[in-house]
Amino acid sequence: MNGAESLIRTLVDNGVDTCFTNPGTSEMHFVAALDEVPEMRAVLALFEGVATGAADGYARMADKPAATLLHLGSGLGNGMANLHNARKGKVPIVNIVGDHATYHVQYDALLQSDIETVARNVSPWVRTSQSTEELGADAAEAVRIASGPPGQVATLVLPADVSWGEGGAVGAVVPAPQGTIADEATLDAIVTALGRGRKTAILLGRRGLREEAMTLAAQLAATTGARLLGETFPARMERGARLPVVERLAYLAELASVQLDGLEDLILIDTKAPVSFFAYPGKKSYLVPDGCQVHTLAADDSDVIGSLEVLAARLGGKAKPVVLQQPSRPNRPRGKLTADSVSEAVGYVLPEGAIVSDEAQTSGVSLPTTTAGAPRHDWLTLTGGAIGQGLPVAVGAAVACPDRPVLALQADGSAMYTIQSLWTMAREQLDVTVLILNNRAYSILNLELNRVGAGEPGPKAKAQLDLASPPIDFVAIGAGLGVPSIQVEDAENLVDELQRAFAEPGPHLIEAVIPQVFTPFRLKAMPRVLGSLEHLPSPLARAVKRRLQP
Amino acid sequence: MNGAESLIRTLVDNGVDTCFTNPGTSEMHFVAALDEVPEMRAVLALFEGVATGAADGYARMADKPAATLLHLGSGLGNGMANLHNARKGKVPIVNIVGDHATYHVQYDALLQSDIETVARNVSPWVRTSQSTEELGADAAEAVRIASGPPGQVATLVLPADVSWGEGGAVGAVVPAPQGTIADEATLDAIVTALGRGRKTAILLGRRGLREEAMTLAAQLAATTGARLLGETFPARMERGARLPVVERLAYLAELASVQLDGLEDLILIDTKAPVSFFAYPGKKSYLVPDGCQVHTLAADDSDVIGSLEVLAARLGGKAKPVVLQQPSRPNRPRGKLTADSVSEAVGYVLPEGAIVSDEAQTSGVSLPTTTAGAPRHDWLTLTGGAIGQGLPVAVGAAVACPDRPVLALQADGSAMYTIQSLWTMAREQLDVTVLILNNRAYSILNLELNRVGAGEPGPKAKAQLDLASPPIDFVAIGAGLGVPSIQVEDAENLVDELQRAFAEPGPHLIEAVIPQVFTPFRLKAMPRVLGSLEHLPSPLARAVKRRLQP
Repeated sequence: MNGAESLIRTLVDNGVDTCFTNPGTSEMHFVAALDEVPEMRAVLALFEGVATGAADGYARMADKPAATLLHLGSGLGNGMANLHNARKGKVPIVNIVGDHATYHVQYDALLQSDIETVARNVSPWVRTSQSTEELGADAAEAVRIASGPPGQVATLVLPADVSWGEGGAVGAVVPAPQGTIADEATLDAIVTALGRGRKTAILLGRRGLREEAMTLAAQLAATTGARLLGETFPARMERGARLPVVERLAYLAELASVQLDGLEDLILIDTKAPVSFFAYPGKKSYLVPDGCQVHTLAADDSDVIGSLEVLAARLGGKAKPVVLQQPSRPNRPRGKLTADSVSEAVGYVLPEGAIVSDEAQTSGVSLPTTTAGAPRHDWLTLTGGAIGQGLPVAVGAAVACPDRPVLALQADGSAMYTIQSLWTMAREQLDVTVLILNNRAYSILNLELNRVGAGEPGPKAKAQLDLASPPIDFVAIGAGLGVPSIQVEDAENLVDELQRAFAEPGPHLIEAVIPQVFTPFRLKAMPRVLGSLEHLPSPLARAVKRRLQP
Repeated sequence: MNGAESLIRTLVDNGVDTCFTNPGTSEMHFVAALDEVPEMRAVLALFEGVATGAADGYARMADKPAATLLHLGSGLGNGMANLHNARKGKVPIVNIVGDHATYHVQYDALLQSDIETVARNVSPWVRTSQSTEELGADAAEAVRIASGPPGQVATLVLPADVSWGEGGAVGAVVPAPQGTIADEATLDAIVTALGRGRKTAILLGRRGLREEAMTLAAQLAATTGARLLGETFPARMERGARLPVVERLAYLAELASVQLDGLEDLILIDTKAPVSFFAYPGKKSYLVPDGCQVHTLAADDSDVIGSLEVLAARLGGKAKPVVLQQPSRPNRPRGKLTADSVSEAVGYVLPEGAIVSDEAQTSGVSLPTTTAGAPRHDWLTLTGGAIGQGLPVAVGAAVACPDRPVLALQADGSAMYTIQSLWTMAREQLDVTVLILNNRAYSILNLELNRVGAGEPGPKAKAQLDLASPPIDFVAIGAGLGVPSIQVEDAENLVDELQRAFAEPGPHLIEAVIPQVFTPFRLKAMPRVLGSLEHLPSPLARAVKRRLQP
């Protein structure tokens, strides 16, 4: 057995049976070995950012890692932005990067580069396999590390001669990951905090936003009077009708600060204390109010469920009823296409069990409201801020869950970083509905240009944020990549096309050309942002309105 | 004056008046400052790989660096493959990467990553500007370092607060770069080598492939009987009718070895001793014959022209006539589209002064032959092996040389890494003709799978190299990105459309669907590769044929 075959068999034995690929010459033995191991599915991408983002989306839904197959340092570079997103979301990926043969490195051939150093930026664990004999064991270790906790990108660099050499040995099956339970001192502090009647919130992130953890946390909140918050950009949030209501923190620090205002204790469940996404002149980066005590019940390496259960046992008492989201849908929208009417259409049609990959950016501000009471679904967001993640994540989610409808809500500017995803959707006939929200601008930068205080922009600055010249025709691009594509004219038409797309198998692309939510270059838009907070408990929404509309 | 303005003014004062951009929030002050400095042209890209590749193409043609503007570590990651290509080609780029405000870094916000470490992989010089006051001087230093010799990627990391702070000071104008002349010992050794009647070749790379250097080298070759070789993947080669004939080394090590066979002395002019692109089991990586002496007349930091002139003076004697390429064009091709007929069409129409960005890969094997006698033109190749460089380089070349026609010869698979380039061509109305050579495969991997000895591939392996399902419709994609696009039916049609595209201003895309040159999964193709060697002196071509067709 050559190295490549031992590697693939080790992955499969450890449950890693899907590999998102964009191979080159140095990966040819891996490619050839795919036929020796029928259990491994290889999904080809036209660009490495699609492969890495798909591995991310896959793991979020499958709760186990996929592998990638990338070509040398340049392929890793192309895949890096979405590996960054996976890193920030603590999503497990076994990231396999082919390299030159070990003896070839000394010649500094054209594609030679320092793979390990680049990989360390996105991957806490990096190992270049040194021999064919050790490759299987290295692969098993990569799976163990990737699986966590915390989930992470584990990079295995695969020299061509290690791959093609004979003498491969299949690696062991690694034990299932175990987390740790919160220690006594932490539990004591949290029990005290929850018991003293102060303003307290429980902030849920990552594994805390799955049904079981949310329900346990919601019971704690109901019992103690704490508020239940969710992190701004979760890797995966289970939501919809009859799940606990969790108030997600807003992207805009101006709004998140209002949400956090007055808190005296903040309990973190698998997330960090909130900070501003960017720095803004004269504004605070750390968003926790002064004097608020921060407690970490569960962190990266924790057993989240176990820690919540132990805390509940400590608190004792009778669990009060949890606030569950009531089923509700917006009315069927009519008339012209706007970010609002598109969001209403999404809420109106979202099917039971849908997986939503949300990279709608500014055009998505009302989505939390319009979809809150839809049938139960999963919501996947941009975990690391590197745009171009939405379409690849949709690919991976659809591969992981072939029986569930996937909806990619995709802003135009962000779509163009990894538009090649559409081809993989067509090739694999994935059941993905891509809804392009095309406002023909980097609209968020219109807002940010104002927020950073860069003054009144001139024509050259405005042109840098403008995608209208030429307008991007996503219907043509979708068709060019093999996805049935259509532009919709109005909200009724959009509802019809969404329903048709969900009813038919395979991928569909729907383009909705809409105005920008934010009037360019003015923060006039701020009151509009409040739309995104209308799912908040009304006293808070009123507080936000008071603060922002003096 | 804020930091951003001082930065842009410093760049402009130093002749860097073009910036290829894909900005985000942390770059908004730079964007706003564009309107303060009218001399700076900002060219927006939809993807960072387009921006970095365009900066590369610009510098190859303008002989001075452009700047980039990238957003944080993820933007740098997206731009890295083409920065790698620029690094390998020693092409100057002032690579500006925005960062979080210095005081924001401690919070490890979602987009936080280690920019410097990633940058070092492509950029020998990396500096994070520490204060607004120093930014102008830092920018001047970046231009100085980038300009070389050798040309290089110099990365200036720009924290948002350094950019937005007041107190900026415009940096000095840096002196023009100077290279060194070969030392006496080197000259002595080369004079001796050239004088002893052994089999000698002069291998030209980089700056050695420009007219003045080529002519000097050709005179040396004519005087001494040395052969004149060119590196396989030059950043820019001046060629065509009435320029010296330079025999480029083949990509395939099997062929390059034949070209180098029997050499006793090899004189390097601004290039390295040739090595195999990849390693192959049982084959040598270092391609210089055993016992051949290697002499470096000019390296990275050299004055190439000066060194050639000094050597010529040392050799003395009367210059013999140089072998110049005779003007010739292929006949007008007819009939079906094949890699050959497409290459003939290119040779038949190539206009005087054209700039060719060549990423035709396997479909381009006859291009050296069919274009050798075309009117004088520049040929830009894939300098670092990271595919997805051809279209961005065409963008940059067209920005640098608005009065010259640019022809991008682009393979289908490679095109899809940076297809977003088409939008910038449309937006800037660049005079680029994109000819897509669509063989619906990663055809080179069919060849490489065989070369690496990976055995008879099964269906899963074959599928990894196949781009036919679904077929990519480049006409639709081109139209979707604003470029007038057409698919041609036959060779006559192709000639007509190429002529039309060259005659009309603005970008055009022509898609030619052609069969693969290499029969999949067999090295049957090797004799076909000989087509690429037919421009070689016939004794060598005969030697190659003897070696490969036993």
